[in-house]
Amino acid sequence: MAQYSIGLDLGGTNLRAAAITREGKLLRKVSGRTNLGEGREVVVDDMASAIHELIGEFGREDLKGVGVGVPGFIEMKAGVIRDSPNLPCFVNFPMRDEVAKKLGVPVALENDANAAAMGEKWMGAGRDVGDLVLLTLGTGVGGGIIVDGKILHGFVGMAAELGHMTVIPSGNPCGCGNQGCLEKHASATAITAMAQLVGLGDDLTSEQVYELAVRGSEKARHCFSVMGRALGIALATLVTTFNFPLYLLGGGVLPAWDLFAPPMLEECARRSYIFRNTDTRIEKATLGNEAGLYGSAFLGFGD
Amino acid sequence: MAQYSIGLDLGGTNLRAAAITREGKLLRKVSGRTNLGEGREVVVDDMASAIHELIGEFGREDLKGVGVGVPGFIEMKAGVIRDSPNLPCFVNFPMRDEVAKKLGVPVALENDANAAAMGEKWMGAGRDVGDLVLLTLGTGVGGGIIVDGKILHGFVGMAAELGHMTVIPSGNPCGCGNQGCLEKHASATAITAMAQLVGLGDDLTSEQVYELAVRGSEKARHCFSVMGRALGIALATLVTTFNFPLYLLGGGVLPAWDLFAPPMLEECARRSYIFRNTDTRIEKATLGNEAGLYGSAFLGFGD
Repeated sequence: MAQYSIGLDLGGTNLRAAAITREGKLLRKVSGRTNLGEGREVVVDDMASAIHELIGEFGREDLKGVGVGVPGFIEMKAGVIRDSPNLPCFVNFPMRDEVAKKLGVPVALENDANAAAMGEKWMGAGRDVGDLVLLTLGTGVGGGIIVDGKILHGFVGMAAELGHMTVIPSGNPCGCGNQGCLEKHASATAITAMAQLVGLGDDLTSEQVYELAVRGSEKARHCFSVMGRALGIALATLVTTFNFPLYLLGGGVLPAWDLFAPPMLEECARRSYIFRNTDTRIEKATLGNEAGLYGSAFLGFGD
Repeated sequence: MAQYSIGLDLGGTNLRAAAITREGKLLRKVSGRTNLGEGREVVVDDMASAIHELIGEFGREDLKGVGVGVPGFIEMKAGVIRDSPNLPCFVNFPMRDEVAKKLGVPVALENDANAAAMGEKWMGAGRDVGDLVLLTLGTGVGGGIIVDGKILHGFVGMAAELGHMTVIPSGNPCGCGNQGCLEKHASATAITAMAQLVGLGDDLTSEQVYELAVRGSEKARHCFSVMGRALGIALATLVTTFNFPLYLLGGGVLPAWDLFAPPMLEECARRSYIFRNTDTRIEKATLGNEAGLYGSAFLGFGD
């Protein structure tokens, strides 16, 4: 059998795991719900069950390790989740060591957006580069930065919280205490709020606003245009800061690319002479919601 | 004799060079003018003379290499200056190889702010960390980013052009084509422009505005406060992006620290929960205008 690693993505809603070979072949994926209501112990048991199911099929001797991606801030040295709005019962839980103890295999713990960036670098849109930035456009905006093939962690593990870059200094208030954060102007929730502000309706999902735009609503199109300009401001600053060859966008709002990308690229070009004068690429991520599984599995190999 | 390297800093006004040992001891410094008016050949000859003067004193056999720092964009692989408002006659000049040929020693070519960041990492305020960001507040704003002890270059060599981060999307126009660039709101020239806007006088230097502020002018103090807030926006985004332990400020406007730093730190704290919740330090650089000499010399060792 081929050597493999297991990547596990623990979201606030879904728990997914996949066995992936060193060559990046996804052998099998299992998914279930994240039963947060039943408490932390049950969720950890569910994680172990998913992993044991894959081990049962592909063997223990070929398993090199397990990588776990979670939404939230991870103190990397300790392997502890320090904050996680989506997984509140895991705050201050020593996830890495507890899961390793339960399974008897090495475990790597990583922020989910960082893991997704690593996945895109390993087997997705970033395979041909050593350095990239990923923005995941979902309920919020996550970020992952790969420098020279490795995740940029910073000294605590909080690097790449790019959803909280200031793009509009006097913009919308954010739960983090700032105002004008990228994720308050360029995310699914930002689209919902903008749709309400222009009178399209209350509590429309970003998909519904997208449908309205596709069917010709100028107001709906305007929401995505405004989102694109906010992204363009952020991307211009990222391009000017990193001069990386590749910036990727992923997440649930990615299908609206055709609506937000033209103003985004125009704004980025206007604000970054480096973007205008180099072959910098801003592109769609290609692994969808499997990016995190690939990235976590890659980290599970412990290379 | 001890092994040494020569760092050379070629500015638009001054040409300085220093012999520095591997342990970071500055043996001797020579300085002169950058005679741009007499053409590129004369300037290169002056560079060679300064270097030969130091070689004459400290010996050729112990010289490990030469590092040259210049203001402008350097295409790193080619060792060519691609753009430089301060050294127009050197644009597209293969500085690295031409100087190496003339001297017969290995030459490293680097952007001056990158070199300064490396200098601060090697022998200045950043000696105890592996990762830092330096902002140099002068006529413009330069930037240097050190990741894991090395300069972040990006794929062309244009990384860390932090003076062109967008901090005020609808702010002042910049020669780069953007508006609201950091250096149009937080530099010596920005202070001059603000002083004019509040009626303090035309063409005051930032030093003169500083003197007015120290002598009690509320308008002058306000200029530095507005500058501090712009810096705070940029620093908050940098802290949120990198989660590095240290951010340094240097350059000619640094003596005004007591005026711009309090609003800067307040703004940064308001906008970055990572700054509020970690031991992130924002501090003065300590090597002054010798930072670039130290950094260039360090690069001259070629380690």
